Amino acid sequence: MSDYVAPLADMRFVIEELIGLERVAALPAFGELNSELVDQVLEEAGKFGAEVLAPLNRVGDTYGARFDAGSVSMPPGFKEAYAKFVAAGWNGLAGKPEFGGQALPQIVAMAVGEIWNSANMAFCLCPMLTSGVLEALERIGSQEQRARFLPKLTSGIWSGTMNLTEPQAGSDLSAVRTRATPQPDGTYKLFGQKIFITYGEHDLTENIVHLVLARTPDAPEGTRGISLFIVPKFLPDANGNAGVRNDVRCVSIEHKMGIHASPTCVLAYGDNGGATGYLVGKENEGLRYMFIMMNHARLAVGLEGVAMSERAYQHAAAYARLRVQGRELGATSGDRVAIIRHPDVRRMLMLMKSQTEAMRALAYTAAAAIDLAHHHPDAAERARHQSLLDLLTPIVKGWCTEQAIEIASLGVQVHGGVGFVEETGAAQFYRDARITTIYEGTTGIQALDLVSRKIGSERGATMRMVLAQASSTAADLLGSGDPGLEATGERLKDALAALEQATDWLVGIFPSDPHQGAASAVPYLKLCGLVLGGEAMARAARVAARRCDEAEADRTFYRAKLKTVSFYAEHILPQSRAAVRVVTHGAKATLALDEASF
Amino acid sequence: MSDYVAPLADMRFVIEELIGLERVAALPAFGELNSELVDQVLEEAGKFGAEVLAPLNRVGDTYGARFDAGSVSMPPGFKEAYAKFVAAGWNGLAGKPEFGGQALPQIVAMAVGEIWNSANMAFCLCPMLTSGVLEALERIGSQEQRARFLPKLTSGIWSGTMNLTEPQAGSDLSAVRTRATPQPDGTYKLFGQKIFITYGEHDLTENIVHLVLARTPDAPEGTRGISLFIVPKFLPDANGNAGVRNDVRCVSIEHKMGIHASPTCVLAYGDNGGATGYLVGKENEGLRYMFIMMNHARLAVGLEGVAMSERAYQHAAAYARLRVQGRELGATSGDRVAIIRHPDVRRMLMLMKSQTEAMRALAYTAAAAIDLAHHHPDAAERARHQSLLDLLTPIVKGWCTEQAIEIASLGVQVHGGVGFVEETGAAQFYRDARITTIYEGTTGIQALDLVSRKIGSERGATMRMVLAQASSTAADLLGSGDPGLEATGERLKDALAALEQATDWLVGIFPSDPHQGAASAVPYLKLCGLVLGGEAMARAARVAARRCDEAEADRTFYRAKLKTVSFYAEHILPQSRAAVRVVTHGAKATLALDEASF
Repeated sequence: MSDYVAPLADMRFVIEELIGLERVAALPAFGELNSELVDQVLEEAGKFGAEVLAPLNRVGDTYGARFDAGSVSMPPGFKEAYAKFVAAGWNGLAGKPEFGGQALPQIVAMAVGEIWNSANMAFCLCPMLTSGVLEALERIGSQEQRARFLPKLTSGIWSGTMNLTEPQAGSDLSAVRTRATPQPDGTYKLFGQKIFITYGEHDLTENIVHLVLARTPDAPEGTRGISLFIVPKFLPDANGNAGVRNDVRCVSIEHKMGIHASPTCVLAYGDNGGATGYLVGKENEGLRYMFIMMNHARLAVGLEGVAMSERAYQHAAAYARLRVQGRELGATSGDRVAIIRHPDVRRMLMLMKSQTEAMRALAYTAAAAIDLAHHHPDAAERARHQSLLDLLTPIVKGWCTEQAIEIASLGVQVHGGVGFVEETGAAQFYRDARITTIYEGTTGIQALDLVSRKIGSERGATMRMVLAQASSTAADLLGSGDPGLEATGERLKDALAALEQATDWLVGIFPSDPHQGAASAVPYLKLCGLVLGGEAMARAARVAARRCDEAEADRTFYRAKLKTVSFYAEHILPQSRAAVRVVTHGAKATLALDEASF
Repeated sequence: MSDYVAPLADMRFVIEELIGLERVAALPAFGELNSELVDQVLEEAGKFGAEVLAPLNRVGDTYGARFDAGSVSMPPGFKEAYAKFVAAGWNGLAGKPEFGGQALPQIVAMAVGEIWNSANMAFCLCPMLTSGVLEALERIGSQEQRARFLPKLTSGIWSGTMNLTEPQAGSDLSAVRTRATPQPDGTYKLFGQKIFITYGEHDLTENIVHLVLARTPDAPEGTRGISLFIVPKFLPDANGNAGVRNDVRCVSIEHKMGIHASPTCVLAYGDNGGATGYLVGKENEGLRYMFIMMNHARLAVGLEGVAMSERAYQHAAAYARLRVQGRELGATSGDRVAIIRHPDVRRMLMLMKSQTEAMRALAYTAAAAIDLAHHHPDAAERARHQSLLDLLTPIVKGWCTEQAIEIASLGVQVHGGVGFVEETGAAQFYRDARITTIYEGTTGIQALDLVSRKIGSERGATMRMVLAQASSTAADLLGSGDPGLEATGERLKDALAALEQATDWLVGIFPSDPHQGAASAVPYLKLCGLVLGGEAMARAARVAARRCDEAEADRTFYRAKLKTVSFYAEHILPQSRAAVRVVTHGAKATLALDEASF
């Protein structure tokens, strides 16, 4: 196993030079934020990830979470690591100060989250879910609920979960059947079964706070009849501590292909008289509330894609530097060389590296959009950033995770035969990454959200705004006088034309023939990702070209960035040529075959 | 788990209508071959695969091959299944009659092999390796060696293995260190360690015949000093039965991501005085001989890609028909529908189906080329087919396996959350398929073989012959008067132009700058696969269009074929636009980054 080293240089570059930390630091909410503080946080996180979390990644994979008679025990070392995580205050990094949080912006939390995920994705699903619950309760919990639950969720002494899925209700939440019956004291009794509940049961925390979708007795059918409830594993007592055991039990955990350390639970509510739940917000508004968590979680899963890609890349690059095999191409004598000297190994590593950097840039851009959408003093700016965030969320989730699977697969390939052997660890990334295109909404669901709610319903307005900005990036590169930047500018210009054409087609087709729009949705989402990722890379090249000339700059980093962008421009951006054709001409063929002929 | 059903209709279509069984049946070697016989063989194989092998696939995955004190025990049921396999004569299907084989052509053996692999890939690695040993000994074994080993290897009472890899000698076989010391009796004593030996030890057969690469004492360095030896686990006695235990031991087996039932062994030769080996052919010619097996094995692994894709497709289609989730797109009331109704699920299934059919057509074409190259009465025709086979082998191996990984991944995706849960079986295909781009030469090795030995050294001659034939296919479709065929013809014409341009570039660059050629090798290989697969699909459409009008034809099949080809033309062939750009302009960027910056 290679050691994980947080890619601090690229993280800082994206945050400070590409996005601009000052834009976020200027927001009143983040008064004391500056580069030094961000550097310090990232460095500490890098250490914690490398020293505490990463060494447990393979332990977690081989040992797995274990179920026994309603309890789940975590793999050796996880409990101690989680305690350290809480003690160091990592759980409350972006939490509100009034509940003990450190109020750092999402753009910093995103980078720190990338580190946790690279180090140990299965571990950090626990804090990821908790932070989703935190955000939902901060925004829609009652005063009393917030006072009761947020301090312990912010510190991480308690953890949180999202309970949506039921056997018949996966992507289609309108089919939820769990019942919630009102009680005279204002609470509810819940009855039903939830499946695929990540960290639904475990031994890391004193209590687990489940947010559960259920129907009240007179609720309308479908999605408009779903309410959201807090159902703690232990009911808080008068002092706010974990008290009486609630009627929710873990029935079993899944035997999964990856993320073995993350317990995926079947939870039974109400087998012994009903699980006590507290209504969050208003009845029948549950799905809308749940989307607060879900959008948060979607970006977080997109980030998992970035993180797994980075980890797989580092692992493969380390192996390629060490593994000696064959001679320099064409040589029949002389020393044998490390496989990193072989052109195709280099191609694979460049595919991994360049796409990971593009994905990071896009994911962090979405994080900055959260900060600006929530905290900008100007309402119009807030709205503009919210639109951008809404557009980017499915793209970051869908594209970064789809690419992560390919990148993890390339990582196995770089290893050759030993990549297929579990001990080297490359296989684990390939297995772990495979969940990311599925949970929190499959790529198909993300793409449908993108083309219907984002592109279709606003007739591509936000995308056109993004395209206009991107065109000025292309023009900037084309007018730079630098042949390398100009070449990248050409590729970007082509790719933007493709994305514009695809967007026009979608805007045109959606009202009249949504089936065709839906059939082209995933190819369109991937096109968005690769082009917008490319735009971020092109801007990165522009910055790097300037910085290469500065005496005090880290020239090695900037020169590598220029070459990495160039690779992206020549290998990834041309895919837009194929993608636009598939989006605009492929839908009919997708829908043509009758069901019986499959 | 879905039931496996051999895709007999498409197999027959490819063999009889697309390639033309009569071309193979006309060869003197296959005097009694006809459609009825082929149908009968395929039907029986389909039954055996579905009833005997497929039910053991998951058993094999969950139980795995187990190592204990030098022995390997196979998962429950494997021994009985193998005995039935041997008893039914399946092992000797393409073997020579003088050794008990049935002398069926490779084109039939290929289809049957697809069935075995779809049903249980881990199981059929055993007969696959045996048939490689069979072919090598048939061609280069001495009279006495053939008499001694071929009958038992043909029946399958004994199995065979290939022993190439050592810890320091993976893709680079010039680094082989295993020693072979000549003995006064004409035998050799072997000393050394071999790794990654598939079915190197197991309890299915009475004996295991290892073909081993080793160096004699005075052998020259590098690949020109490697000899090939037969090293049986038990030395045959005077009656030809398994006799004295030889000095080769299984030291351990690998803990792999997939194909758990296939034991991947570390074999130690000569720890107790030397393992007795018999030289095959001449000293120092071993690598050339080994390539006989290896080329056979490469096609066989390409076929595994086809087979895994078919199985993953069937599994996903079955689930998509059964799983009810959500309503028809746009509907907010009414019945919920099976997910096969959702456009993106359909897109994924079409990607799986159309590429699997294209891969099958190309793989079987290579099999027919074997038959014609070996058995055509005309030497010039034999040579022409041998060239075609040489060209197609790395393409079939590389492309079909790379696509198989993507297709198995799509199969997981169609399943959603349950795809990540092991019990459904979709995850196993994703894990099992992952080895196919690695063993018997990685995709990088295949691509280097393609661009250097096949394209570079003959300046693209065979590829130009293939392109000329393909152009006439495109012209035929363009002149058909049928708008659907014409559209496919247009896409094919574009794609052929791309492949021609990429070939020209490679032919031009290879002599002067092999590094650039090598950097573009894998993208070129994938381009070859998708375009040549598309050419086969275009021809299939032409046949299907004619047959649709015939009263007695199976119109459902031919109509589905037309729609499947159309999907391939609109979704897969346009990828050639991106690929040609990457091949011809991407190499410099691949090679630009200095090693320290990875």
